[in-house]
Amino acid sequence: MSNMIEHPKVGVHDFFIKPFHCDFSNHLRLDHFGNEMINAADLHSDKRGFGMNYLRTIGKTWVLSRFAIELLDFPKSYTTVKVETWIESAMRYFSRRNFAISDPESGNVFAYGRSIWAMIDTETRQPCDIFSLDNGCLNKYIDDEKPCPIDNCSRVKVNDDASLWRTITTGYSDIDVNGHVNSIKYMEHCLNLWNIDWYKSHKLKRVEMAYIAETMCGDQLHFYVSEQGNGLFGIKICTDKHEVCRCNITFI
Amino acid sequence: MSNMIEHPKVGVHDFFIKPFHCDFSNHLRLDHFGNEMINAADLHSDKRGFGMNYLRTIGKTWVLSRFAIELLDFPKSYTTVKVETWIESAMRYFSRRNFAISDPESGNVFAYGRSIWAMIDTETRQPCDIFSLDNGCLNKYIDDEKPCPIDNCSRVKVNDDASLWRTITTGYSDIDVNGHVNSIKYMEHCLNLWNIDWYKSHKLKRVEMAYIAETMCGDQLHFYVSEQGNGLFGIKICTDKHEVCRCNITFI
Repeated sequence: MSNMIEHPKVGVHDFFIKPFHCDFSNHLRLDHFGNEMINAADLHSDKRGFGMNYLRTIGKTWVLSRFAIELLDFPKSYTTVKVETWIESAMRYFSRRNFAISDPESGNVFAYGRSIWAMIDTETRQPCDIFSLDNGCLNKYIDDEKPCPIDNCSRVKVNDDASLWRTITTGYSDIDVNGHVNSIKYMEHCLNLWNIDWYKSHKLKRVEMAYIAETMCGDQLHFYVSEQGNGLFGIKICTDKHEVCRCNITFI
Repeated sequence: MSNMIEHPKVGVHDFFIKPFHCDFSNHLRLDHFGNEMINAADLHSDKRGFGMNYLRTIGKTWVLSRFAIELLDFPKSYTTVKVETWIESAMRYFSRRNFAISDPESGNVFAYGRSIWAMIDTETRQPCDIFSLDNGCLNKYIDDEKPCPIDNCSRVKVNDDASLWRTITTGYSDIDVNGHVNSIKYMEHCLNLWNIDWYKSHKLKRVEMAYIAETMCGDQLHFYVSEQGNGLFGIKICTDKHEVCRCNITFI
């Protein structure tokens, strides 16, 4: 790790949108925005010496604690977009990482993202000290100046009147390299609570997720939804035993 | 279309496998094999003048009628694979298109695919004459010599003893640019019928799909499964009214 080449603070890669990354309207599917962001997070970390492939060798991994995406515009198939990510700050148990997806030519931004990550021990599933990584190697990549002009992750509110809209059983494709239900798959299941007619007349503005507990393959997930006014919905995802995730979705 | 530049018969593109394209074992998720193949199909067609974006302008689109994938090996994250596709033959109402996904350096093949496509009218949803396209422009791209050493699509058999394993409601992310449930999403839902413990002790060898009727967002799909011996499973997918898809899955 100590002889790692110095990389810029901001990670950049291009993403070419293929037709079957798109939704009914031929625009990038909303869950793919999120998936491309978390892929960018690992590409950025991997190159700088603290990605999941390295962490696995020392019995650790990254997990998402909070994630917010705001959509400004929706790119179409056969468009190449620029995906940027950078670490805004790091504390002992959490790092804040931001994202921007934009048109590489015009600079027009399609989406911003904000996220909070914890590093956990893969055996105990408990948080570890981020600065224990090679004397705090993350620190030299912190960029607290690059703007990410969307609201910070805040408290995800779900009203008490939330009612059960759907129950699903998680399966093979929900599970990622961390062995648990993938954070973007929760988002995909939330977005699936509305049908195509809804999406034809409403635009997604912001999705914000708070991840509370892990779930595994075969778990049943219950989705409780509350309509909270001004296009804001609160969703509480629970197993039979406890709450595992909360989500706020704003449509305009 | 007539001034279209001549392209080679076989379409080739690279696909870099990112960590969140992978399953619990850090290998490319099985549904992503399929999705990358159908993306390759449209990239190939688009470049040669008969992709979905062009067909949409004349009220037509491509839909999958049959699809078979055989898996020989499973690439890991941070691997770049080569995706090839070519048209093996074309008849009035169907074209046969094959696929290979391989290691660009060693030539080692990860997967082969065979598929049968129909061109339909987007209004009537009825098949159209493929050769009506610019005087049969597909014909100059037929490659009936490149080998695809897996069995042809054959009759997908599901025994009468198939029993109901799961019912799902399709949502936003199931629907593709054709406005119906995406062919690979049926495959993903079928693969999700087995849990991670099963995948830890069994390798997927072949998946074969027969698409019978379209389904739309919000439709309920019932999955009936029969264990047919020697690792072969038959799956019948039905709405409340009729059968829409059949699948054979072979594990070893």
